[in-house]
Amino acid sequence: MRRAVALAALGLGATSPNPVVGCVILDAAGETVGEGWHRRAGGPHAEVHALRAAGERARGGTALVTLEPCNHTGRTGPCAQALIDAGIARVVFAVGDPNPTATGGAHTLRAAGIDVAQGLLEAEAAAGNAAWLTAVRLGRPYVTWKYAATLDGRSAAADGTSRWITSAESRADVHRLRAECDAVVVGSGTQRADDPHLAVRGIEGAVQPLRVVLDTNGTAVTPGARVLDGAAPTLIAVAEDATPAYEAVETVRLPRTEGGLDIPALLDVLHARGVRSVLLEGGPTLAGAFVAAGAVDRVVGYLAPVLLGAGTAVLTGGGITTITEALRLDMSETVRIGPDLRITATLVAKEH
Amino acid sequence: MRRAVALAALGLGATSPNPVVGCVILDAAGETVGEGWHRRAGGPHAEVHALRAAGERARGGTALVTLEPCNHTGRTGPCAQALIDAGIARVVFAVGDPNPTATGGAHTLRAAGIDVAQGLLEAEAAAGNAAWLTAVRLGRPYVTWKYAATLDGRSAAADGTSRWITSAESRADVHRLRAECDAVVVGSGTQRADDPHLAVRGIEGAVQPLRVVLDTNGTAVTPGARVLDGAAPTLIAVAEDATPAYEAVETVRLPRTEGGLDIPALLDVLHARGVRSVLLEGGPTLAGAFVAAGAVDRVVGYLAPVLLGAGTAVLTGGGITTITEALRLDMSETVRIGPDLRITATLVAKEH
Ligand SMILES: NC(=O)c1ccc[n+]([C@@H]2O[C@H](COP(=O)([O-])OP(=O)(O)OC[C@H]3O[C@@H](n4cnc5c(N)ncnc54)[C@H](OP(=O)(O)O)[C@@H]3O)[C@@H](O)[C@H]2O)c1
Ligand SMILES: NC(=O)c1ccc[n+]([C@@H]2O[C@H](COP(=O)([O-])OP(=O)(O)OC[C@H]3O[C@@H](n4cnc5c(N)ncnc54)[C@H](OP(=O)(O)O)[C@@H]3O)[C@@H](O)[C@H]2O)c1
Repeated sequence: MRRAVALAALGLGATSPNPVVGCVILDAAGETVGEGWHRRAGGPHAEVHALRAAGERARGGTALVTLEPCNHTGRTGPCAQALIDAGIARVVFAVGDPNPTATGGAHTLRAAGIDVAQGLLEAEAAAGNAAWLTAVRLGRPYVTWKYAATLDGRSAAADGTSRWITSAESRADVHRLRAECDAVVVGSGTQRADDPHLAVRGIEGAVQPLRVVLDTNGTAVTPGARVLDGAAPTLIAVAEDATPAYEAVETVRLPRTEGGLDIPALLDVLHARGVRSVLLEGGPTLAGAFVAAGAVDRVVGYLAPVLLGAGTAVLTGGGITTITEALRLDMSETVRIGPDLRITATLVAKEH
Repeated sequence: MRRAVALAALGLGATSPNPVVGCVILDAAGETVGEGWHRRAGGPHAEVHALRAAGERARGGTALVTLEPCNHTGRTGPCAQALIDAGIARVVFAVGDPNPTATGGAHTLRAAGIDVAQGLLEAEAAAGNAAWLTAVRLGRPYVTWKYAATLDGRSAAADGTSRWITSAESRADVHRLRAECDAVVVGSGTQRADDPHLAVRGIEGAVQPLRVVLDTNGTAVTPGARVLDGAAPTLIAVAEDATPAYEAVETVRLPRTEGGLDIPALLDVLHARGVRSVLLEGGPTLAGAFVAAGAVDRVVGYLAPVLLGAGTAVLTGGGITTITEALRLDMSETVRIGPDLRITATLVAKEH
């Protein structure tokens, strides 16, 4: 199952609106005879890939799958039926499918006389599918807020200089994060200050995320902006009454709220387009608005071993004024990336 | 030698103005027959403890010492002579003694026909003695700036609430840091806001550090302040023209500079009192002044997985306005402390 979880992760960033899924087929003697993962939405599911690789050796064997095999006929046939047809004797899956249209795979398999077990490495498999599972539960994309900061929490120096706070290694790592997400979002402040490109570079085979700029008045994205090149799809969100300064790129109109555009409305639009994971790349104002909207699920901070003592804070606003209201997370991982430290913290799951 | 380095560390916080030293004696057959470390200034040196434990079995054996054995007769006799008298055949030490009054131990040993080698685990041993070695080199105490912050670099919420940003585990760990230092320093802002105690609690056998408050006008430390209790020695630094509001505690008068009291003058006073390591416990203003004075050697940050989006920054001032002037450090360690993360970063050694 550990192998299946690793296989599933290979699909990150490419399968939305589907989950990532990995599958390993063992023959009757317990030998691995097939492996597969869901590579892209619309393509074959993990089980189908693995069964194809196994061929006749799957008969009487075991299928280890990270997610409950689906039961419905979507763009591809139901996997439960494929497993039955291949003569699989036993199916072990990690996480039950919470998706109302896909669920029931375990039931179908059992009804066909297959031995079915659930829960093996469930936590690991769920973590690998965190974005998709959260999106199913909340009906909005899973949001990762990424920031780069000094040890003293500054994202730019007092004079506004911010380039290369973190190292080349950290910047390369951000491309991996982008590749794993379906959309990358920035505000008009970052658009104006940095003219960011937001596409994935240096990762072979990566599916480009949708680049999204929140530009309330349609004035920050100007002709020649780097997000307007053809490297990745781009969506500019503007207010309903705005007159954008550019053309030839997709625009979505959103209601205004205090501070700019309505964040839940943005997330609805993205969800409807199949976006299940969003990488929020800043800046501090927009990040504060996402925090205030309760729309940050995970934080990935790149901390450089640098002190500034002045300059922009990484997060402003968010509506928290006293320590007891602070947004509490769990440190889930810390990794050295070149000279820097990458800290991943996830929202503490609330009781429902 | 690894064992000797570990033994040396047991003396941290108790040996100033001396270094920490560990020593292991092996007999002629290579068996460990004695261990020792320098426990407190004025007490026997590590070698003497270890030789006593070894007794006659030291004859023909090897002494592994973290620092070059001393050659001078201070409060205790020279260790080089003690090793010669014990009939040691071979001495291996990690770090040469940079102290002009103690140096020459290796020479004396060699002159007595002892086989002497230097450099084994030198980096580890030097790291263990970083405070003392820096103090010898710079003629001022080694300064560790400790802070507690949220992921977004805030040390208090917008309404000033800051208690318990970090966990009980982190707060306990700070007591260990205090116990390893000779003095703990805060500014009048922290004194006023928190009335801190600054003594070590919960660590058996710890030598209490000197508690130091920088109170320029002598108005922040008021009768009944917790630092005035008898739990540890206390020194209040005030300006030459100030009239302190308390009595019955030691006061030192320092020149005024922009922002308050002269930091180099403070460090001189502390160095003259035998302080070799200072723990700067805040707040952000005083920390900024230390950074501006080039008097921060190491940073220990306790990061809580919390977002605030508003509130006091952990470091203010420091005189850095553009990114190229930022103070660059090396991440030397990251450790999970309960729910928090402790980050240790040390100043990148400058070329001389
Ligand atoms: N270190 C890092 O990780 C990092 C990352 C990104 C950026 N930065 C730095 O951050 C700085 C820019 O900061 P910023 O805070 O001005 O940029 P920002 O957060 O990217 O943009 C803020 C702007 O977005 C627009 N916006 C639209 N809807 C919004 C909403 N619901 N809530 C809040 N804002 C909304 C608003 O302007 P309109 O309503 O007028 O459109 C707002 O002023 C730059 O210096 C950049 O280099 C640093
Ligand atoms: N999270 C943490 O790690 C942490 C740690 C400590 C404190 N805090 C918080 O920080 C807040 C206090 O911050 P703060 O910045 O006001 O306190 P501070 O840095 O402790 O004190 C600053 C004051 O020290 C005096 N001072 C004397 N010599 C100085 C010099 N050379 N340079 C600068 N200042 C000098 C100045 O006042 P006078 O000249 O008038 O004496 C100055 O205003 C409190 O809310 C406290 O809870 C947080």
